[in-house]
Amino acid sequence: MKITSENIQTVNQKRLTDAAAKHDALAADLELAGKDVAGILQKLTDYQVAIPSWALGAGGTRFGRFSMGGEPRSLEEKLDDVGVLHALTGSAGAVSLHIPWDIPTDPAGIREQADLLGVKFDAVNSNTFQDHDGQQSTYKYGSLSSNQKLARDEAIAHNLEVIKYGDQLGSKALTIWLADGASFPGQANFRKSFKNTQHSLAEIYDQLPVDWNMLIEYKPYEPYFYSTVIQDWGTSLMLAEGCGERAHTLVDLGHHLPNTNIEQIVATLLMRGRLGGFHFNDSKYGDDDLTCGSIKPYQLFLIFNELVYGMNNNTSGNPELAWMIDASHNVKDPLEDLIQSLEAILIAYAQALLVDHQQLAQAQEENDVALCQEILQSAYRTDVRPLLWKSRLMAGAAIDPLAAYRELKIRETLINDRGVNVSATGL
Amino acid sequence: MKITSENIQTVNQKRLTDAAAKHDALAADLELAGKDVAGILQKLTDYQVAIPSWALGAGGTRFGRFSMGGEPRSLEEKLDDVGVLHALTGSAGAVSLHIPWDIPTDPAGIREQADLLGVKFDAVNSNTFQDHDGQQSTYKYGSLSSNQKLARDEAIAHNLEVIKYGDQLGSKALTIWLADGASFPGQANFRKSFKNTQHSLAEIYDQLPVDWNMLIEYKPYEPYFYSTVIQDWGTSLMLAEGCGERAHTLVDLGHHLPNTNIEQIVATLLMRGRLGGFHFNDSKYGDDDLTCGSIKPYQLFLIFNELVYGMNNNTSGNPELAWMIDASHNVKDPLEDLIQSLEAILIAYAQALLVDHQQLAQAQEENDVALCQEILQSAYRTDVRPLLWKSRLMAGAAIDPLAAYRELKIRETLINDRGVNVSATGL
Amino acid sequence: MKITSENIQTVNQKRLTDAAAKHDALAADLELAGKDVAGILQKLTDYQVAIPSWALGAGGTRFGRFSMGGEPRSLEEKLDDVGVLHALTGSAGAVSLHIPWDIPTDPAGIREQADLLGVKFDAVNSNTFQDHDGQQSTYKYGSLSSNQKLARDEAIAHNLEVIKYGDQLGSKALTIWLADGASFPGQANFRKSFKNTQHSLAEIYDQLPVDWNMLIEYKPYEPYFYSTVIQDWGTSLMLAEGCGERAHTLVDLGHHLPNTNIEQIVATLLMRGRLGGFHFNDSKYGDDDLTCGSIKPYQLFLIFNELVYGMNNNTSGNPELAWMIDASHNVKDPLEDLIQSLEAILIAYAQALLVDHQQLAQAQEENDVALCQEILQSAYRTDVRPLLWKSRLMAGAAIDPLAAYRELKIRETLINDRGVNVSATGL
Amino acid sequence: MKITSENIQTVNQKRLTDAAAKHDALAADLELAGKDVAGILQKLTDYQVAIPSWALGAGGTRFGRFSMGGEPRSLEEKLDDVGVLHALTGSAGAVSLHIPWDIPTDPAGIREQADLLGVKFDAVNSNTFQDHDGQQSTYKYGSLSSNQKLARDEAIAHNLEVIKYGDQLGSKALTIWLADGASFPGQANFRKSFKNTQHSLAEIYDQLPVDWNMLIEYKPYEPYFYSTVIQDWGTSLMLAEGCGERAHTLVDLGHHLPNTNIEQIVATLLMRGRLGGFHFNDSKYGDDDLTCGSIKPYQLFLIFNELVYGMNNNTSGNPELAWMIDASHNVKDPLEDLIQSLEAILIAYAQALLVDHQQLAQAQEENDVALCQEILQSAYRTDVRPLLWKSRLMAGAAIDPLAAYRELKIRETLINDRGVNVSATGL
Repeated sequence: MKITSENIQTVNQKRLTDAAAKHDALAADLELAGKDVAGILQKLTDYQVAIPSWALGAGGTRFGRFSMGGEPRSLEEKLDDVGVLHALTGSAGAVSLHIPWDIPTDPAGIREQADLLGVKFDAVNSNTFQDHDGQQSTYKYGSLSSNQKLARDEAIAHNLEVIKYGDQLGSKALTIWLADGASFPGQANFRKSFKNTQHSLAEIYDQLPVDWNMLIEYKPYEPYFYSTVIQDWGTSLMLAEGCGERAHTLVDLGHHLPNTNIEQIVATLLMRGRLGGFHFNDSKYGDDDLTCGSIKPYQLFLIFNELVYGMNNNTSGNPELAWMIDASHNVKDPLEDLIQSLEAILIAYAQALLVDHQQLAQAQEENDVALCQEILQSAYRTDVRPLLWKSRLMAGAAIDPLAAYRELKIRETLINDRGVNVSATGL
Repeated sequence: MKITSENIQTVNQKRLTDAAAKHDALAADLELAGKDVAGILQKLTDYQVAIPSWALGAGGTRFGRFSMGGEPRSLEEKLDDVGVLHALTGSAGAVSLHIPWDIPTDPAGIREQADLLGVKFDAVNSNTFQDHDGQQSTYKYGSLSSNQKLARDEAIAHNLEVIKYGDQLGSKALTIWLADGASFPGQANFRKSFKNTQHSLAEIYDQLPVDWNMLIEYKPYEPYFYSTVIQDWGTSLMLAEGCGERAHTLVDLGHHLPNTNIEQIVATLLMRGRLGGFHFNDSKYGDDDLTCGSIKPYQLFLIFNELVYGMNNNTSGNPELAWMIDASHNVKDPLEDLIQSLEAILIAYAQALLVDHQQLAQAQEENDVALCQEILQSAYRTDVRPLLWKSRLMAGAAIDPLAAYRELKIRETLINDRGVNVSATGL
Repeated sequence: MKITSENIQTVNQKRLTDAAAKHDALAADLELAGKDVAGILQKLTDYQVAIPSWALGAGGTRFGRFSMGGEPRSLEEKLDDVGVLHALTGSAGAVSLHIPWDIPTDPAGIREQADLLGVKFDAVNSNTFQDHDGQQSTYKYGSLSSNQKLARDEAIAHNLEVIKYGDQLGSKALTIWLADGASFPGQANFRKSFKNTQHSLAEIYDQLPVDWNMLIEYKPYEPYFYSTVIQDWGTSLMLAEGCGERAHTLVDLGHHLPNTNIEQIVATLLMRGRLGGFHFNDSKYGDDDLTCGSIKPYQLFLIFNELVYGMNNNTSGNPELAWMIDASHNVKDPLEDLIQSLEAILIAYAQALLVDHQQLAQAQEENDVALCQEILQSAYRTDVRPLLWKSRLMAGAAIDPLAAYRELKIRETLINDRGVNVSATGL
Repeated sequence: MKITSENIQTVNQKRLTDAAAKHDALAADLELAGKDVAGILQKLTDYQVAIPSWALGAGGTRFGRFSMGGEPRSLEEKLDDVGVLHALTGSAGAVSLHIPWDIPTDPAGIREQADLLGVKFDAVNSNTFQDHDGQQSTYKYGSLSSNQKLARDEAIAHNLEVIKYGDQLGSKALTIWLADGASFPGQANFRKSFKNTQHSLAEIYDQLPVDWNMLIEYKPYEPYFYSTVIQDWGTSLMLAEGCGERAHTLVDLGHHLPNTNIEQIVATLLMRGRLGGFHFNDSKYGDDDLTCGSIKPYQLFLIFNELVYGMNNNTSGNPELAWMIDASHNVKDPLEDLIQSLEAILIAYAQALLVDHQQLAQAQEENDVALCQEILQSAYRTDVRPLLWKSRLMAGAAIDPLAAYRELKIRETLINDRGVNVSATGL
């Protein structure tokens, strides 16, 4: 289904007056405090987050999966769903494909469809945590890190194939989440696993198109439960630097041990010029893949604070970051979940844009710790939702995307079109 | 030093117009949404949090302590500092004493001083994690749980003495944080430690004045690092129920293992009628004792959401809760730190008061998970600071307590009066 | 396939001399130290652990599953596999069924088959974390705790059906792992969920055969990632005590927050008379379901130390414990994995039997902490494997079950019999 | 007090026969299995662990300290205590000083005393987590990372002074544990803190004697509770590599987030040629500083397994590792505690020396995960204590050091000599 600008206008109509009034009041306050509201609105409007193709169907756990009616049955339908999100929010202008779950059989057609929806192809994702049809080796004991040359070769070939698909669609980055690891002490030789991985990545990197980046994800555990080859940012950084200038680290919010200070990692990588991408989600326990901002919204703000600072002070050559939502969900409508994630991300971004970095630097210089906290929390406590309403209006999107989604009865339409008992391809 | 109402008026003067305007705008919005703003303001004004006597000097860690000038040198000066906090914030109308650090040598005089400051005596705290002067046994291997009868008896006697001091001042509750535990497997017999503790608590309980409550704190680790006798709420509840109806569990936010869902514990204890008190602080790693709301403000809101719900549905006989800030601080002025804590607590409380429980109950009934989240987050995202300004004005306190503290040069005055190189009594 | 006593004798033959020599040397040492070796051997021989029917096929994660050849295709074949384990180890004399994955269509036949294999039917497990065929409601938002009466009723009926199946086979306990929970703040009303659960459990309890126990498991998170209805032992205990005397708490080693002192929980429940069952596994991060003793063998020993102490001092009416291995495995042959788990469990048990509780009690009484540690570690550091060899010989099992499994080429035979591409029923 | 070889012989006398018999039986078994027992014994005898000067008195927590009689009152007495440990264990042949707690006022005399005791001076430790007498700046807000040039300069000068003291005594390494960090979001600019630290370290490194190494410790939290400048191994490695070839990372077992795979970090640093030192202790929750091997002995073994492998395959230029015990203790006699730590370390080392790396490599190559586990656990389950007895006999030390310590009534003698109410200098 497609959302038309008339649809948008209809649902916005009744909210226009109130949104304008609240925006104007907030803008007046902010301008009084010296903020460049127009500049902030522009940044909010420009900001685009990729939707991963696997997040459009109901997620599951190892204990099962409860399907949701109207799930997309093909890449084309997935793209349509991203189009819906983008039309409503104005900030979902990219999609991130996962191969082999979403191999484009008609690349030109898909590109054309995406163009019409205003959606770009962001980083493409390879998958060597499952065996593929026709594979000769198995990834059960590792892929890029495997001690079996055949498995490594097939995993390298798969990544090169993913690049090929991405290239056809206009992607400019390959994201590698290497799930390889061990579930028992003794199972793997840490050094050999690392060296195999370094060699495999270098082979892929050597064939990366010149305008592409390689993004290397890290994760402490799961699906293996004793060790993971790329267990933390330090390991990812070593591997990236071992490959070359266009290899970078990708941070997924859910891929950290309990209590990790993630914003410091973000700042460190930005300082080093090696932060390449970011996967948004939220979690209380592990890689829970919950809606962004649903558990720790203040942490999200603190991370955005570092991202904004880092982007304003990008002296060490970080690439344009690949932003993506990597959440899964088995109790909400996935499209509603993504709308809520986008809202939380933009709120955190807007709040971070309100931080007065000059004032903060001075308070830090004077070790006025209470004031430092006040500066951050004053931005965070501001209700920035009117800025989002305004920026979405500027982008031709819905003032309140979640309400619009419901008022336009989108899920009902999708169920009508696609049926109740369908399951999205992928996990 | 004392803060006069003239002092308050002076610092409030320049903020009056803006505060009124912002409050009125917010109140109008909230009333449009069906909120009882007057009722909320009254609840905010009524809400009082106890300040512990040990939080008024600079805190420290096992690696040292950096003193702050102007620390209080006596119980009277500590009370003065609470008076300053209460005059500025209108919500610090209670103090919680720690024995033996703050033994009142002139109870009548202290009570009179407190009355003048509008400060009540909340729960009194015993201390058996250190040996006391003149003690015959040692608490090195335990106090109420000790396998040495003499140590248990002295610990019981100490608690009874604490009650006596509290009674002279008008306190109505005894808080027991039992630090007893073991640092090595095998050191303690879990069962015997529990039974000794149960017997010791029962002896104290038997001599509790009839209008007093006993509050039993729990904590998973520290100062012992293998096991703690009262390691969790379940253990505390068993002990409380083993004592009698006026024994309750006290929740300290910092006393939980990583990732614990504290709000669920709060709800469970409220359901059971056994939540007796609450210690506020914040933490990222362990019992970090940081400023409330400085790390996880959303968790604080979720906890208040349960507290508000529980107080509105108190069908199982919870007593009036003893609220206290239990934070320590070695990089901020402790009074500024406490002002920031009070602010964060009141913000969370105000946000929780905005939650529409009827609407929430319906969304829960319909398993509309996305809407449930929206309802909570909509309250949380509201910038409620104007409500605090108004409620403080109503209470004759400072609109912006932290700014007032600085404008009135309180720390400078304290240093002048008390000296630079002074250390508060206690830890 | 069946293992005959001839098979066992064949593989034992070459190990007999060495095993006897080592056992005799160790036994002499132990007897010199005052241990009752014969008594210990008898306890080891008597000790039986249930094998869950779902652990006999390859496990998986939410990221996929790599099958293992020769997996059992029916309940009968699962029972055969338990028979193999029991023949080899002498300590796998029970099986724990999971309904609806293993509904016995021919109860009498299954019982007879089990009798021949020397295998009993331990606790039966219900499953309400997945929707069942023909179900009218959905468990997506809860089962026994659901706010939908229909879902609760169907979940209750399912548990009653599980009891019926178990009764036909001679089981004497129902294990309820209630996965119900919420993934987002606000989704559930903690109190209502608890009360619904209490009512549902009571209904089941009321129809429990008089010689049955009900075992209530707890778990902090997964498959839901914000809250779980029965999140910890305290909640489980409240529910059990709310049901009646034959309701007990079941401890699963993997169901705890990071750093939890599990042995203290075990001791507390034994003291309370409410420990009913135990699920063995090991983990480094969460509910990893790894081979017992593969990560934290000393913790396993400390837990057994409490179990032995508790069983020797069972003054509060704990039932006979239901012991079960609850491990999953995707990189090992599941049968080999279970053999390794059994070995680790028996080693921990044997070490715990070597602890001198009288000496320990005295060292505790004297607060001789270093000596307390020595007493435990001296038992733990003893190489008790010769005791296991002897006890298995006494039971007619294999001295070295893992070696025997390989020498007898059991997996090869199973693949021959059942095929390479088969998947066990269940998860 | 001094331990003479006659003392040792006296206490060994009654244990000689049994120790010899058990050693010979074990040695025979091991040789049958192809182990080079003589080589293992030599390695055990050669292995020396440094005792930190601050571990000889009773430790404390932020909640207090319970003194132990007979604590050393001077550097000379601390050295005497290390001498006692070395005489008893044969493996405490080094001491690690902490400046300014243990400034040698008579370096030549101290060296001579140490020579007589057979004790070397290992890495020296600087301290910038406390302010020093005569300091002009404060380290309250940082030292090497401070935004105040004066604080950085004084911290650098302190480190250079520490080198000077160490040089006089024959030390060859400087260990820097930089406690700098922040307790609140916003307090510090992560990037500036890192860059200041890098510059400060480079200045110290530039003046490091040519035969010295610089060891850079990391720690996630404490004494600051939001962020630490050198929060993890990745940050330490970046800083070390930014200094030069003789700067290395030091791993302290207690300085990791919950569930960290430490052995993988050790392997990674060894692969990179940047592991410089190791601080032994054990912990359940945080930096608990418990006796080595008292909580997670298997983890200690797994780490030693990597250390042995790494030292046997040192192809990337790791220096000789500085081994030190960094434990604190408030419930045991510190000397007994250190004896227990040394025992646990040597047991783990001996077990690791039993691992058949060739067999393991083959099992890994074949992805025979169950066998990999068996190989490690078979070594771990071996009771290697007889090897320690033998190696200590070879070194002229006590067969059973803890028993000897008690039989020789060493604590009683120390109390007699030094008094009951003395407190070691330092923390």
